[in-house]
Amino acid sequence: MTNVVTPDLNRGDRIGIDEAVLCDSKSDADLIYILKDAIEGNHSLLLTRLFETSFDKLPIDIKKNIDYDAVSATGFFGPLKELKESSLVAIVTAGTSDNCVAREASRTLRHAGEPSTSFDDLGVAGLWRILEKEPDLRTYPVVIVAAGMDGALFGVVGGLVPGTIIAVPTSVGYGAARNGETALAVALSNCAPGILTVNIDSGYGAACAALRILRQIRDS
Amino acid sequence: MTNVVTPDLNRGDRIGIDEAVLCDSKSDADLIYILKDAIEGNHSLLLTRLFETSFDKLPIDIKKNIDYDAVSATGFFGPLKELKESSLVAIVTAGTSDNCVAREASRTLRHAGEPSTSFDDLGVAGLWRILEKEPDLRTYPVVIVAAGMDGALFGVVGGLVPGTIIAVPTSVGYGAARNGETALAVALSNCAPGILTVNIDSGYGAACAALRILRQIRDS
Amino acid sequence: MTNVVTPDLNRGDRIGIDEAVLCDSKSDADLIYILKDAIEGNHSLLLTRLFETSFDKLPIDIKKNIDYDAVSATGFFGPLKELKESSLVAIVTAGTSDNCVAREASRTLRHAGEPSTSFDDLGVAGLWRILEKEPDLRTYPVVIVAAGMDGALFGVVGGLVPGTIIAVPTSVGYGAARNGETALAVALSNCAPGILTVNIDSGYGAACAALRILRQIRDS
Amino acid sequence: MTNVVTPDLNRGDRIGIDEAVLCDSKSDADLIYILKDAIEGNHSLLLTRLFETSFDKLPIDIKKNIDYDAVSATGFFGPLKELKESSLVAIVTAGTSDNCVAREASRTLRHAGEPSTSFDDLGVAGLWRILEKEPDLRTYPVVIVAAGMDGALFGVVGGLVPGTIIAVPTSVGYGAARNGETALAVALSNCAPGILTVNIDSGYGAACAALRILRQIRDS
Amino acid sequence: MTNVVTPDLNRGDRIGIDEAVLCDSKSDADLIYILKDAIEGNHSLLLTRLFETSFDKLPIDIKKNIDYDAVSATGFFGPLKELKESSLVAIVTAGTSDNCVAREASRTLRHAGEPSTSFDDLGVAGLWRILEKEPDLRTYPVVIVAAGMDGALFGVVGGLVPGTIIAVPTSVGYGAARNGETALAVALSNCAPGILTVNIDSGYGAACAALRILRQIRDS
Amino acid sequence: MTNVVTPDLNRGDRIGIDEAVLCDSKSDADLIYILKDAIEGNHSLLLTRLFETSFDKLPIDIKKNIDYDAVSATGFFGPLKELKESSLVAIVTAGTSDNCVAREASRTLRHAGEPSTSFDDLGVAGLWRILEKEPDLRTYPVVIVAAGMDGALFGVVGGLVPGTIIAVPTSVGYGAARNGETALAVALSNCAPGILTVNIDSGYGAACAALRILRQIRDS
Amino acid sequence: MTNVVTPDLNRGDRIGIDEAVLCDSKSDADLIYILKDAIEGNHSLLLTRLFETSFDKLPIDIKKNIDYDAVSATGFFGPLKELKESSLVAIVTAGTSDNCVAREASRTLRHAGEPSTSFDDLGVAGLWRILEKEPDLRTYPVVIVAAGMDGALFGVVGGLVPGTIIAVPTSVGYGAARNGETALAVALSNCAPGILTVNIDSGYGAACAALRILRQIRDS
Amino acid sequence: MTNVVTPDLNRGDRIGIDEAVLCDSKSDADLIYILKDAIEGNHSLLLTRLFETSFDKLPIDIKKNIDYDAVSATGFFGPLKELKESSLVAIVTAGTSDNCVAREASRTLRHAGEPSTSFDDLGVAGLWRILEKEPDLRTYPVVIVAAGMDGALFGVVGGLVPGTIIAVPTSVGYGAARNGETALAVALSNCAPGILTVNIDSGYGAACAALRILRQIRDS
Repeated sequence: MTNVVTPDLNRGDRIGIDEAVLCDSKSDADLIYILKDAIEGNHSLLLTRLFETSFDKLPIDIKKNIDYDAVSATGFFGPLKELKESSLVAIVTAGTSDNCVAREASRTLRHAGEPSTSFDDLGVAGLWRILEKEPDLRTYPVVIVAAGMDGALFGVVGGLVPGTIIAVPTSVGYGAARNGETALAVALSNCAPGILTVNIDSGYGAACAALRILRQIRDS
Repeated sequence: MTNVVTPDLNRGDRIGIDEAVLCDSKSDADLIYILKDAIEGNHSLLLTRLFETSFDKLPIDIKKNIDYDAVSATGFFGPLKELKESSLVAIVTAGTSDNCVAREASRTLRHAGEPSTSFDDLGVAGLWRILEKEPDLRTYPVVIVAAGMDGALFGVVGGLVPGTIIAVPTSVGYGAARNGETALAVALSNCAPGILTVNIDSGYGAACAALRILRQIRDS
Repeated sequence: MTNVVTPDLNRGDRIGIDEAVLCDSKSDADLIYILKDAIEGNHSLLLTRLFETSFDKLPIDIKKNIDYDAVSATGFFGPLKELKESSLVAIVTAGTSDNCVAREASRTLRHAGEPSTSFDDLGVAGLWRILEKEPDLRTYPVVIVAAGMDGALFGVVGGLVPGTIIAVPTSVGYGAARNGETALAVALSNCAPGILTVNIDSGYGAACAALRILRQIRDS
Repeated sequence: MTNVVTPDLNRGDRIGIDEAVLCDSKSDADLIYILKDAIEGNHSLLLTRLFETSFDKLPIDIKKNIDYDAVSATGFFGPLKELKESSLVAIVTAGTSDNCVAREASRTLRHAGEPSTSFDDLGVAGLWRILEKEPDLRTYPVVIVAAGMDGALFGVVGGLVPGTIIAVPTSVGYGAARNGETALAVALSNCAPGILTVNIDSGYGAACAALRILRQIRDS
Repeated sequence: MTNVVTPDLNRGDRIGIDEAVLCDSKSDADLIYILKDAIEGNHSLLLTRLFETSFDKLPIDIKKNIDYDAVSATGFFGPLKELKESSLVAIVTAGTSDNCVAREASRTLRHAGEPSTSFDDLGVAGLWRILEKEPDLRTYPVVIVAAGMDGALFGVVGGLVPGTIIAVPTSVGYGAARNGETALAVALSNCAPGILTVNIDSGYGAACAALRILRQIRDS
Repeated sequence: MTNVVTPDLNRGDRIGIDEAVLCDSKSDADLIYILKDAIEGNHSLLLTRLFETSFDKLPIDIKKNIDYDAVSATGFFGPLKELKESSLVAIVTAGTSDNCVAREASRTLRHAGEPSTSFDDLGVAGLWRILEKEPDLRTYPVVIVAAGMDGALFGVVGGLVPGTIIAVPTSVGYGAARNGETALAVALSNCAPGILTVNIDSGYGAACAALRILRQIRDS
Repeated sequence: MTNVVTPDLNRGDRIGIDEAVLCDSKSDADLIYILKDAIEGNHSLLLTRLFETSFDKLPIDIKKNIDYDAVSATGFFGPLKELKESSLVAIVTAGTSDNCVAREASRTLRHAGEPSTSFDDLGVAGLWRILEKEPDLRTYPVVIVAAGMDGALFGVVGGLVPGTIIAVPTSVGYGAARNGETALAVALSNCAPGILTVNIDSGYGAACAALRILRQIRDS
Repeated sequence: MTNVVTPDLNRGDRIGIDEAVLCDSKSDADLIYILKDAIEGNHSLLLTRLFETSFDKLPIDIKKNIDYDAVSATGFFGPLKELKESSLVAIVTAGTSDNCVAREASRTLRHAGEPSTSFDDLGVAGLWRILEKEPDLRTYPVVIVAAGMDGALFGVVGGLVPGTIIAVPTSVGYGAARNGETALAVALSNCAPGILTVNIDSGYGAACAALRILRQIRDS
């Protein structure tokens, strides 16, 4: 009755994105098994949703191999890729509460060697904030926007800039914000044309999608 | 087994808003009964959600007493109140699809003797449209905003102008717009402080709320 | 990879309501950063949803600058505005369980210099309670009603008094009360005309909306 | 591949309520089969949710055996039970839109030989209406209350009278009324103690429950 | 800014059911205030949803006045009514997991002086269990049925016995049981005629409804 | 811009079930294209959800090749497989309203050469009906149960007979029946162990699952 | 009380996508007004969700200016842009029922001068179909995938090819397919990394997003 | 007021599956009562959803009688049945996070004497994994598939192998995975014909269904 792990080692060659480990749904034993296996195989891994209480429970000899960031609950395991020079991705947040999601995106990009640029706390309740950044934002081919609650920032950015817009609805807010479901529905039913969406709080998903796009841009 | 109607005739004295007749949930027989009763009693009535197929089925001698507007599905029955001079209510729409709801609001206000001013088709996908109207909108004590789909206009207006904002989510859109539920949730979980909400498509509700506020302003 | 805060400092001039800090979705580090920045800038701030466990974790030198109220989970940071004399806002609760939300509203009003008057525990199961208060309630231009479970109080008050009614659905109850969703839907689909609604448990939102209305009344 | 019908003929002896035929989910052929079978067996039947378009499609020789009421979409098939003298059930509606549901209840009771008394159009937006009827309503052992939209009438009646309260949420309203789901949730999460609920629009269900209670009262 | 309590002291006279205190939504301070007030006024009170962690936090001099039952999370405060002799209420459970809800019902009845009889663990997966009890159950004028998960017991009992059936859906189960929502919907859309429903887990509501019915039976 | 069809012709060899055509989501043009293609290729096809209005619109030369059944909205196209002798599948319905779904199952089985046996109208409100059939039902290796509303029949059958139970929730009922969602949730959260479920109204799905099971039984 | 239209004429310059007209939520009068205005201004327009019954009601002199496609419910109004040579977008469907959505995407792309390539009817139930096309699909920088029901195709394509994947969930299916909500949730919670999503049935949205990406690729 | 337990002891004889104890909804006292009763009666029991914190609280003399597995939260109580030789059930997981559910299935089968074979970590994002196992999987008459998030594995397996497919949606994932509801809806609305479904996370339910099928196969 032992279970085995079947890592998808050639994913990077196949689709350009290496396999990452989604930690929070795994038992402690399975997580340790996977990481030990990676140490032995000398793999490089991105760990996501590795929340602090789980990280703290890892054995010290595994922990010391992880470059851990508590805000984004991500870890880099093993050596990192070289960082490219030009940043082609802007990451915009509506408020400081969206930081953790934005950081998951930037860390995922960094793990793949892609730099990104942060534009923080630009919610539309103070519209001058996003208008002030508009000229700068227009220069990025990919713009990731993280926003919760009413998600109004998605459409405002989508109507202002020509880059690819990837909306990340966040679970910020209470009551009718419904743990991000409202921001998600807003991203999907947007008046601004061509807004793309990923799962609630999925900075990782937004970054992976950006990697698919960037590959085409950098290669062409 | 006959049913009777118990009109709330002193509602106007009590709360400042006369009773209106919500037509679409009533049987044809009940609707005719109510209107005949009003003719006999010489009452003045606002009819709402009187959709064209129902209006067409009314007897000709009742129809001729109704000042009917098909766009808003409203009817004025009996003599109208005198229209006040100054317009204190701005009615903003995100798109032409929101016209029917906006018109229900303006007709309800007009029935109560209150003029209103329309600001149409100002959705945030073309943000310059609402910015252009901002100085004018700032002068209104009450601003009704009708928007469907992503409802982003509620928060943008709420962050720009100091008047009382009444959001009317509309059932415009498809898929994740969920018949106005998304715009409703957006209005409720808004980042801009102090946005007030009424039911989906309820131009009537927004207008009644405006009447409560206007009474205080005009009286003070 | 540091995130920055972009406070909307001229919000008060623009819309008459100062920016407040929604604390419960922020990381401890971000919250401390914001408060230290406010101490340095000598800003006055309203803190909302600062629950006791978070408040307790703040450094002592920040805590001592906060006039904290555990019931409403609000804090006043910095000097307070002078309190106006006349109370124009009634705050009605259906039961003692709605106190925390009602208190968030009264504290938000007080931070803006507006007094308010409490009418507690008037749920319709004992209808004589609200009827007894009716004459007094009719004198207020703005009536905030906080109720959970069946939210029947919204419509009863709305049918009795002419002031502006702001319903605050609360998350009180269990089962079909659905964490306030039922009371919210009741507020929105009300038979009494012109009921306005804010988010579940949002005493803050109700108070901000009241401030928009009061400005018009006090100025006119 | 023919299907057969297995009527539950001794249901009346077992639980005191005869089997009724829910018509709207049956194919025309099945409905005709059941009714022909009843003619042959000389059964007496209550037909519910037999909407006009379906009734019109029935063969004339079946139709003429049905005492049909279009408002409630019910039909009496075969001879009727003798009507008892005293009415022990009050049926209260919030508005004229609730008539069809109330009529389904009174027709179901009448089919079982129980008279009922109607109290119509007593919604709480005009609270004086229900208060005026309170002394009369207090004399009924069973009070059926039909209301849609905000369903506030359930709790107000439940707090005023000692009889058994059976709430019938109706699908009246739009938007957040959600086809009766809001009124249903209100009935279930009521502040007034001991409110009982049946399905949305189920005047039939309310009447059947009343029959169970009445049997105990009349027998004791 | 102090809140006050407005107890509905004549509720018993008005509707035959004394006010009870729903404890779990109240702050510790409010709960202690209410209980001290009751000690001073020498009131008798039923406390519901007083979960063990809250009970443990009460001051010792209040605790000693409470006859507490941890299974049902109820407390009797003050002297008890005399218990009537004959039991007219059967309380049926589908499984042992429904005990806590059934006990809330029996304790509420006992507080009002009504005995009840338990029929436990009779879920339909072993149908012989309920069939064995059928003759006995047929003798009760009121049958409360507590069941979670698929709630199949409601309809089976409703089809077998003539008494008034009060279904209490419980939050037992996982996944598609959806915290009792499935059992609730089952109770409402039942094939057996005349099933009545109360809120999820509301043994208290079922008992209060039974009290309304019993009063009519005992009085007639 | 022409679209092509890519039939999965070897599906029968691969998984033992031939491809069927789900008709109701296809445009008239696409449906005709597929059928003409089948005539040319001399394929045998099962058509499902081919509702009468769509069937009537087909060209006469296609229609005449279809053995159409309006109750189940299914069609047999081309020559039929020989029918096996023994019936190993019982199909049970709770009421006559479930006939159309039960017939879709029996027609799908028949298209694959499998006979089935109908047990109709055995809802638990009259429990004697299913108990009467229990000995017979116990002899079938596969029992398909079609039921809507409260779906109580699934668990009762599941607790009585040892065969594989396939529940087909039907969209029969109104209000809280929620178009079959309630019966579906009941099937999934059942107390009787080992109930299997397919989609709402999917007699086709139940039959296909039965075919997978039968193949093992007949082959072993 | 006339409403005005405020077209966002410089949208193309601002974000690279011209304004389109969403027809199905507009009144006939408003639609005709917009189209007449476009004829006068000599604008080129893309019309979406112009269903056949609405198209048929347009005046003949407007109709003749529209290159209409009934399958996708789209119309080209005015002269078309020149079509680019190389096709950079693959459009994959799971079944023929997804054709209308796929066609909305290809028509939107064509209106902007972008060719696309169709890969039809490749649902995973016959997995060989998508595997056969894999080498070809790997050459496209953007892959739009339209699928309803279980939406399994999104993840399979996402795991096989490196291009940007835009999932369009379609409303194909019944019961638990929930009008496309299930396919939408599948796209969002996908195991394959970097899947992007647009609204249910929004071929238009997918195409607009593709245009944002293509601009970067063609420009770089 | 004591509650009793009514075990369904002849369930095994009746339907071939012994009663199991669902532990997580039971109070500690009830659980201990049941287990002591089993010790005295010398029964053999399967315990499910006995999570570690509950297990730890059991008295030591009960614990020592339990063969406990923390991963699956199951316990074997009393002597075990002899294990059959041939494994007829394959248990497939999409990822390591699905292990606990898969283990509940294999342990339930083992308790009934049925061996099973695990196929782990075969999610479709790396499609080669499931394709590699296809020939082996085709030999099993019953295939249980446990998958969360997008549940794409259900349809892929269903389209490849002829055995009976029992889908167990798991609560793995976040946001739009909605605690397993998305995977559940995917299983139900699958394109691959004849997929059967059990409750979210119900490895137990899948195993019980398999036992019903296996009995037919082993007996025939």
